[in-house]
Amino acid sequence: MSSFLLGELADIVGGQVIGDKDLKITGVAGIKSSGKGEITFLANPKYESFLSITKASAIIASADITEIFSGSIIKTENPYLAFFKVVKLFDKPHTEKYRRGINKTISVNDNVQLGKEMHIGMNVHLGEDVKIGNRTTILPFVYLGDGVEIGDDCLIYPNVTIREGCRLGDRVIIHSGAVIGSDGFGYAQEGRIHQKIPQIGIVVIGNDVEIGANSTIDRATTGKTIIEHGVKIDNLVQIAHNVIVGENSIVAAQTGISGSTELGKNVVLAGQSGLVGHIRIGDNVKVGAQGGVTKSIPAGTRVSGYPAREHTVARKIYAATKRLPNLLKEFRDLKNKVEEIQKGCDGDSSTEDD
Amino acid sequence: MSSFLLGELADIVGGQVIGDKDLKITGVAGIKSSGKGEITFLANPKYESFLSITKASAIIASADITEIFSGSIIKTENPYLAFFKVVKLFDKPHTEKYRRGINKTISVNDNVQLGKEMHIGMNVHLGEDVKIGNRTTILPFVYLGDGVEIGDDCLIYPNVTIREGCRLGDRVIIHSGAVIGSDGFGYAQEGRIHQKIPQIGIVVIGNDVEIGANSTIDRATTGKTIIEHGVKIDNLVQIAHNVIVGENSIVAAQTGISGSTELGKNVVLAGQSGLVGHIRIGDNVKVGAQGGVTKSIPAGTRVSGYPAREHTVARKIYAATKRLPNLLKEFRDLKNKVEEIQKGCDGDSSTEDD
Amino acid sequence: MSSFLLGELADIVGGQVIGDKDLKITGVAGIKSSGKGEITFLANPKYESFLSITKASAIIASADITEIFSGSIIKTENPYLAFFKVVKLFDKPHTEKYRRGINKTISVNDNVQLGKEMHIGMNVHLGEDVKIGNRTTILPFVYLGDGVEIGDDCLIYPNVTIREGCRLGDRVIIHSGAVIGSDGFGYAQEGRIHQKIPQIGIVVIGNDVEIGANSTIDRATTGKTIIEHGVKIDNLVQIAHNVIVGENSIVAAQTGISGSTELGKNVVLAGQSGLVGHIRIGDNVKVGAQGGVTKSIPAGTRVSGYPAREHTVARKIYAATKRLPNLLKEFRDLKNKVEEIQKGCDGDSSTEDD
Repeated sequence: MSSFLLGELADIVGGQVIGDKDLKITGVAGIKSSGKGEITFLANPKYESFLSITKASAIIASADITEIFSGSIIKTENPYLAFFKVVKLFDKPHTEKYRRGINKTISVNDNVQLGKEMHIGMNVHLGEDVKIGNRTTILPFVYLGDGVEIGDDCLIYPNVTIREGCRLGDRVIIHSGAVIGSDGFGYAQEGRIHQKIPQIGIVVIGNDVEIGANSTIDRATTGKTIIEHGVKIDNLVQIAHNVIVGENSIVAAQTGISGSTELGKNVVLAGQSGLVGHIRIGDNVKVGAQGGVTKSIPAGTRVSGYPAREHTVARKIYAATKRLPNLLKEFRDLKNKVEEIQKGCDGDSSTEDD
Repeated sequence: MSSFLLGELADIVGGQVIGDKDLKITGVAGIKSSGKGEITFLANPKYESFLSITKASAIIASADITEIFSGSIIKTENPYLAFFKVVKLFDKPHTEKYRRGINKTISVNDNVQLGKEMHIGMNVHLGEDVKIGNRTTILPFVYLGDGVEIGDDCLIYPNVTIREGCRLGDRVIIHSGAVIGSDGFGYAQEGRIHQKIPQIGIVVIGNDVEIGANSTIDRATTGKTIIEHGVKIDNLVQIAHNVIVGENSIVAAQTGISGSTELGKNVVLAGQSGLVGHIRIGDNVKVGAQGGVTKSIPAGTRVSGYPAREHTVARKIYAATKRLPNLLKEFRDLKNKVEEIQKGCDGDSSTEDD
Repeated sequence: MSSFLLGELADIVGGQVIGDKDLKITGVAGIKSSGKGEITFLANPKYESFLSITKASAIIASADITEIFSGSIIKTENPYLAFFKVVKLFDKPHTEKYRRGINKTISVNDNVQLGKEMHIGMNVHLGEDVKIGNRTTILPFVYLGDGVEIGDDCLIYPNVTIREGCRLGDRVIIHSGAVIGSDGFGYAQEGRIHQKIPQIGIVVIGNDVEIGANSTIDRATTGKTIIEHGVKIDNLVQIAHNVIVGENSIVAAQTGISGSTELGKNVVLAGQSGLVGHIRIGDNVKVGAQGGVTKSIPAGTRVSGYPAREHTVARKIYAATKRLPNLLKEFRDLKNKVEEIQKGCDGDSSTEDD
């Protein structure tokens, strides 16, 4: 592995060294697990307590922590972004990790067009009319159906299925086991029988998209399921037919988006959340973990809970439910008291009437 | 792609043309994305607003919409079913999509029995005693364990695993990444150690079943996990050991059914719902999205929420929770008021006593 | 299949025969589906009603059930554990199920070290520097990245991906479609762009771990994601980067654990539960099905619901919500009554004042 001087790293991330510029950094690690020669970072205040016990030789931080941390510091406004730049230095791009060349066990059908400087691993299936761009890496047991198009600099991990006609942009990463272009779940009821509606559309994926392990993105019934540029999708996510996920949106693990729902830009769906079909989620909407969204949400709103409500409202409701068992008891008491008062009053009146 | 005259389509779907019977239809599409020469449909009233802006040349609809839609119309009672019939015309069956023949890279073990007019793609694994029916299509990287039986006209997509002894009926579709016959999750506790109980049962799948991408159906501990005829299962669904899913039931994405639970016929489980083990769900039951079912449910009931309750009750509860924070405030006020009244009364009484 | 005398089985499980010691047992089955010559068990009282109708020739039970069950009985304190021991007798270990030997279609890279008495199926990918222990079974379409280490007596089912550098202990079982070592989901925000943080850590899995079909375990950003000895993970589970799952913990299907969260020993997470990131779950904690854990939980606690609360509290809250719609109505009535009383009192006073 390579090594860097702390001063070099500070220059790369645009930070300022407090301590030893000539310190040799040989690795990067988390605050709890890092050791001698390694650099770590502090972005989440939850981890401040580890500053005094970390064995890291250097740290990236935004605050002045010289009193609690004895090593050298790179001070910078966004330590997480700086950490990202440092980790990148210690990583190799896939074009270097996977030797360029095409394995002879692959199956190539008619009219396949391959770019240059590719890596294609063992037992890859390339259907008819498949087009793949330059420097793209395709690992073993990947199935590309007829007419699949993949751009430049993509990375397709083992055991991925991309079905016929689907199209990927440049710099797309698809993790193992993901399925792109499986049939949408659509049936027409004919008595008790569910007649399968052929799903003749495709999936179109923009540039710089990442799709997590074992996630599934269904092809459109007709037309396109669309994942726009810069979208990041985590593991085990389900995206149904004809969904549109807007630019730079984030979809965390085990989330599900039902058919024909459209997400705006920069939407964030936290883990295990679910969206019903045929709704519209505005730009910059945030849905909380396990949130169940049952209707369209205007841009900029943060929602949570089931059914999903504006987050501050949902929080108040959840806090209030905690007091509900007690409220029921107190209510009974109050009711009794009022009845007594009423009796008392009636008693009084009747006395008066007497 | 093929083309049809509007009159021909009307005859096929059993509808009536309002407009140009000789209009040439070259494709089928959604109401928002369709263009010239294409036919679309209107089934969900949510989409009525697109009638005036759609570029489709024709539409399938149940109502008279000549005032808002300028193209030709096929009028029919069930537009979605008619749409299904039209989409089918523009699709090819898998027996035509995948050239008949058996790839020479497959591995064939002892005593394998293959039907006629099959397609078996590259790198398919057929264990000992595997039986496959006529016209079935098996795509690359599919693993069929020893003794697996598959009926006629089935379609097994790439990267599917069907483990030893499992049996599929006719016209079954299994989407990519699905796992049929993985071990059930069963352990006997011996002190702190979880002793694995061998799962020696199988999975039996009826006719006309469809199983979604990356779904998992566990084999029975002993006996059978059963998916009956006509069941449709979406993506990323988990079905545990010894479950029975009754005829024509629908299981939407990311739903989980725990061990030994039995579903009747025509059950509908919406997305991300979950059922505990060892319960019985009656015929025609509907479970709402994200519903958490903790006990048996009688036939014909609709439930939702966590823990799942009769749907109309659950709705009332969710509506009521919205008013809970305010109720707590109002309750405090009322309590104070009652105390004041009581003091007043006491004051009155004492005055009276004076 | 093999057969045993009932007396032999009783000796093996440490139980006592009530009935015919020389009864020949040819199979093992569930109480509802078992037939002549088979033995079943009764552990869950829910199934007592099947005692009079089961066709099993013998049963393992803890209570005296001679009045309702007409066959022979093995009486033992823990029938489920005894059942496990009997099922094991009717099962073969993977070292016998899968013929020892290495398929010639596999791809072997530099410096691979293989143990003895292995089974490696067709089309397995072994990266550089892969090490595999003795008697391990690896089935078709498994991808082992560079530097992967697997211990003795492991069983890796078809279509599994284990990415570079990950390490497995002994007697580990990985079910089909599981992905070990996919990238953690980490991005640094740079304006609207999500910059991918390279995930350069690994996954380390202890001894006697089982990982379910299509589950995903992400590699650490730096350092290790750790699954300790004896952990059992069900299907479709998501475990994010830098998570630690403590010894002998149980993670049921479709559960998700977010980044850097740490579980103690013997934790039980029921199905579809979710844990946010950066929290600590103490030893012996139990999380209910669909529970949403939003903060650290002390050892020994049982929690449920969303947001997860101490189970007895959560139960009271859920029970109370059922009475909420009615409470709202009653509250309105009481408020009116109080107002009337107040008016009455005011009336009284004013009368008095008059």
